[in-house]
Amino acid sequence: MKRKLLPAWIVGIVVGAGAGYALNAFAQAKPDVLVKQRQAAMTLQGKYFYGQLRPMAQGKIPYDADQAARAAAFLEALSRMPWDGFVPGTRDVKSGALPAIYEQPGKFKEAQERAQAEISKLVALTKSGDEAAVKAQILVVNKACSACHNDFRERQ
Amino acid sequence: MKRKLLPAWIVGIVVGAGAGYALNAFAQAKPDVLVKQRQAAMTLQGKYFYGQLRPMAQGKIPYDADQAARAAAFLEALSRMPWDGFVPGTRDVKSGALPAIYEQPGKFKEAQERAQAEISKLVALTKSGDEAAVKAQILVVNKACSACHNDFRERQ
Repeated sequence: MKRKLLPAWIVGIVVGAGAGYALNAFAQAKPDVLVKQRQAAMTLQGKYFYGQLRPMAQGKIPYDADQAARAAAFLEALSRMPWDGFVPGTRDVKSGALPAIYEQPGKFKEAQERAQAEISKLVALTKSGDEAAVKAQILVVNKACSACHNDFRERQ
Repeated sequence: MKRKLLPAWIVGIVVGAGAGYALNAFAQAKPDVLVKQRQAAMTLQGKYFYGQLRPMAQGKIPYDADQAARAAAFLEALSRMPWDGFVPGTRDVKSGALPAIYEQPGKFKEAQERAQAEISKLVALTKSGDEAAVKAQILVVNKACSACHNDFRERQ
């Protein structure tokens, strides 16, 4: 897994031309790499949310408090990982990301923050031992994820 | 040198992830999904390790203590995510995983645990404010990752 960094002269151009959009010190990865990384974060959120937490809340698999706590903690970390990959330079890479992401960055950020806040509440609840509250909050998180997908991701 | 408390979400990751290595009730995903998920975990480890931590240790990008702490905490969470995807049922799915994973499961587990232990040490060091020690430990983690890749992953 070798990471390819852009040559310094390209970074210079991007930084020089990119006024108004916050590029962090690590945003030198190529657009296709950024897309792959943000998709990886979504894939893993799916592993723990759609594969573990939601089916527990829906009664499709047995509820396990330790597994729920573990999955929620992982989900919280993962929910912080995709966003720096949504930079305008990735618009030409094929993905399910809608142009609205770059046209309404404030709204996109709000949607991220709402999902993250609900996930943080879920993590707190998994420490409470209150199974019903955990299950209810899992469904709240589901809505927050879906709200963002509805506005900013192609229909799947 | 600043000594900083970790944000609650980082503590959450570490505590929540403490359940360790065990095949769980959720390993029913299809083999191709399991492979995609474990590869996603590796891709994201690459984002934070090869994209941020290692170049900081090598002096290729400026050292930033907060970013190093964040990347190390993410890496620790991510380093716990791939292993339940390495089940024999995935052997026929094309990937870089070598048969040795299933032929020498004890050795594979040992290699995982060594990498995870070195990553945990790195997380602890990022709280110490000792930049030289953090950089040195990043290179130790690099060796632990490479050792496992050498034995269990196809040459890339």
